[in-house]
Amino acid sequence: MTTRPPTGSRSARDLERYAALFSTRTKVMKSSAMRDLMAVIARDDIISLAGGAPDMTVFPAEVMAKVMSQLAAEQSARALQYGPTEGLEDVKEAIIEVMAAEGTIGVDPQDILVTTGGQQVIDLFCRTLIDPGDVIIAEAPTYPGAVPCFGAYEADVVQVEMDSDGMRIDELEAVLDQLARENRRPKFIYTVPTFHNPAGVTMSLPRRKRLVEVAAERELLVLEDNPYGLLRYEGDPLPTLYSLDGGQFVVYLGTFSKIFAAGVRLGWAVAPGPVYHKLNIGKQAADLCSSPLSQLFVSTYFRTGEWPQLLSAFKERYHRRRDVMLDALAEFFGPEAVWTHPQGGLFLWATLPDFIDTTDLLARALEENVAFVPGRGAYLDGRGGSSMRLNFSYVSDEDIREGVRRIGAIVHEQVALYGTLTGTVVPSSPVADERPAPGGPDQALADVLHLPRRAGDGRRAGSSE
Amino acid sequence: MTTRPPTGSRSARDLERYAALFSTRTKVMKSSAMRDLMAVIARDDIISLAGGAPDMTVFPAEVMAKVMSQLAAEQSARALQYGPTEGLEDVKEAIIEVMAAEGTIGVDPQDILVTTGGQQVIDLFCRTLIDPGDVIIAEAPTYPGAVPCFGAYEADVVQVEMDSDGMRIDELEAVLDQLARENRRPKFIYTVPTFHNPAGVTMSLPRRKRLVEVAAERELLVLEDNPYGLLRYEGDPLPTLYSLDGGQFVVYLGTFSKIFAAGVRLGWAVAPGPVYHKLNIGKQAADLCSSPLSQLFVSTYFRTGEWPQLLSAFKERYHRRRDVMLDALAEFFGPEAVWTHPQGGLFLWATLPDFIDTTDLLARALEENVAFVPGRGAYLDGRGGSSMRLNFSYVSDEDIREGVRRIGAIVHEQVALYGTLTGTVVPSSPVADERPAPGGPDQALADVLHLPRRAGDGRRAGSSE
Repeated sequence: MTTRPPTGSRSARDLERYAALFSTRTKVMKSSAMRDLMAVIARDDIISLAGGAPDMTVFPAEVMAKVMSQLAAEQSARALQYGPTEGLEDVKEAIIEVMAAEGTIGVDPQDILVTTGGQQVIDLFCRTLIDPGDVIIAEAPTYPGAVPCFGAYEADVVQVEMDSDGMRIDELEAVLDQLARENRRPKFIYTVPTFHNPAGVTMSLPRRKRLVEVAAERELLVLEDNPYGLLRYEGDPLPTLYSLDGGQFVVYLGTFSKIFAAGVRLGWAVAPGPVYHKLNIGKQAADLCSSPLSQLFVSTYFRTGEWPQLLSAFKERYHRRRDVMLDALAEFFGPEAVWTHPQGGLFLWATLPDFIDTTDLLARALEENVAFVPGRGAYLDGRGGSSMRLNFSYVSDEDIREGVRRIGAIVHEQVALYGTLTGTVVPSSPVADERPAPGGPDQALADVLHLPRRAGDGRRAGSSE
Repeated sequence: MTTRPPTGSRSARDLERYAALFSTRTKVMKSSAMRDLMAVIARDDIISLAGGAPDMTVFPAEVMAKVMSQLAAEQSARALQYGPTEGLEDVKEAIIEVMAAEGTIGVDPQDILVTTGGQQVIDLFCRTLIDPGDVIIAEAPTYPGAVPCFGAYEADVVQVEMDSDGMRIDELEAVLDQLARENRRPKFIYTVPTFHNPAGVTMSLPRRKRLVEVAAERELLVLEDNPYGLLRYEGDPLPTLYSLDGGQFVVYLGTFSKIFAAGVRLGWAVAPGPVYHKLNIGKQAADLCSSPLSQLFVSTYFRTGEWPQLLSAFKERYHRRRDVMLDALAEFFGPEAVWTHPQGGLFLWATLPDFIDTTDLLARALEENVAFVPGRGAYLDGRGGSSMRLNFSYVSDEDIREGVRRIGAIVHEQVALYGTLTGTVVPSSPVADERPAPGGPDQALADVLHLPRRAGDGRRAGSSE
């Protein structure tokens, strides 16, 4: 019928015409640094240490074919039809199996809400709880993908420092006390306790226990975001906050993205009844239900019983790549940086001398065809300017080494330039930190990693688990 | 590790403990009448005329198997991985093909945002535009699935009456004038112009043209929700609002749910640049991206070139079922009701005498193992109490007839009871309506359908296209 106007006329479609219509949240809505990088890192000639994607070449193509044909033969009609908002029982069985493997036994299927990725849980949780100006407590740094979500709901996010044992609960309590004096009750505490994204650290057992106590004492909800819990390469597993709390104040967030496949876009929440009910209503409005095609693909796969082998394959590969990255950092970043030593997960967090801005550095790195996530994307208050998140799950061992080498070369160049311009000798301990470390730095690890003696501020090297 | 506490202790998890934490929007959030019915209508012994689901038995299982194995062979790695937020180019090609079949030529892929079902477009559009108290214009009745979404964003929804030619644009203009006098500018006009859900009517061409003019004159966005446009069983196709407007003020919402498969949960928006950008940022926060598995399933299917045959099969089946339902209504609802005559889509709207409350009637109907959507679910202001939405796409011809028979029997019972209680003879024209019809009722159709002479109020029988 009618054709679209030629492209020329679209210059008239300027922002001004629509700007008055946007909601307040829209005006403050910012794009996630990570997602904006997606277009760039999709280029074949870029070594991307910026993503958070699993390496799906681990997944055997013949298994995919087998599961697809079984799904088509057995579940075709259900896969193509709407499902209930809360999710299909089939996939809830797989979720219960995954949570049992994490040590959480006896999850009630009625408490499980199947969602469109773990991201949707964060969104629905904010939707359920946050009015503009409400306080969310998060870690410093926090998951970069949560930042635009918190922004969209106009939350006031207070970020609590971490060290190598995860969120500092003493500081959390001080923050809560301060808020109480201001008559402000935070709506929830958002945490990635295990193999933190982006910091790469893990919350210790004593802190886990204390966090759960604090939540119960103050009747505060905790959103435990646990995408990587099963991807442990060393050390002993720790109980989830959810299992310590018994599902009273901790809402659990899980996802199939990192232990199975990101492309199915399936995650889940486990929440107490009243919260569950509100999340469910929110999900109705958001997307009615998550794809039954995806759900039945997952449940068909999990019924093959092969997922522990897949998990082992992921772990083996990422363990090796973590080691490759740690070795490369020691070789190429040298004394100019500190970084964390993750015992699992996909990321580590590196911090450069504070005269280096990693957002600027990224522009320079992209010229050398390598990418990372600048640290500022993990803060809502402009901090993180000299840090970066590095991913070791997605690219090959060779590319990890080469990528770190290129970034290291740029860092050395910047450090030398700074020295020339200022006439100073750059110290080997790059970041000044006034606060003494609680318990001091982990010298054993620091020695292995050629790390300077420093700690605190969420940038401390080494993990003490 | 730790097991969940026994179920008994969960009685302590009462709403009160969490109530103080919920956001304002949560307190007003209501479940969609439709979705709440899902649990009930999933029972095998219920004849459900309540859903809005396609009949996926139309989809050949062998085609599913073929597409799945092709997808596994060719796209396995991409299907299992994250994709860009805006959607994969592969599926955008299919979208452009669908829109071309609707008569909209030359859509720019860059204007297409692939979403998790059409529902997500409504949610993201509200997120982008609505602050609490902002005005949305919708039809009366409106899509029941949009009602909780509008509620979640605390919009003030003004519903404009329809007749058999769709939304009354004269009334729309009067509403806009009134709002202008109050210094209130509506954020957008939400409309399902073609085979309206739930009303079953279609906006005439003159009204479409005028609506697009009004939007341009007043610089108002229009969200054109068009899930059923290709499901026409009689009459000539009409241009979409989007094609008439050229994508200046009309944002188009499409979905694969009704022309392909609801289970893929894929829809799309076509929006001008600045609005597109904000929708995209909103989607990042909501779910990062829609399932690449679903997207590549759709694109692989569309490349087989078989979708026009599938569409024909859907149309043939639904056309017949619409006729079965119209015949059954004429036979079993008799003079006590009026209903619309949809030229396409999945729904019709029936209105009973105003002393019958369809929400109460549903309880009675469920005892007889038959379900429908009570009309109140399509209003935000408590109206619709004597109307119901009936779906003719999902259940068999025999069940449609039997379902209508059972509802009709309950209606007659209620009418007789009312007569006995009040001592009155129930008039054959069930609903009083003070306003004269604009142009009078369509007597030709009314004769065919045994309809009383009445019109207006969005409940008028017949469609004049």
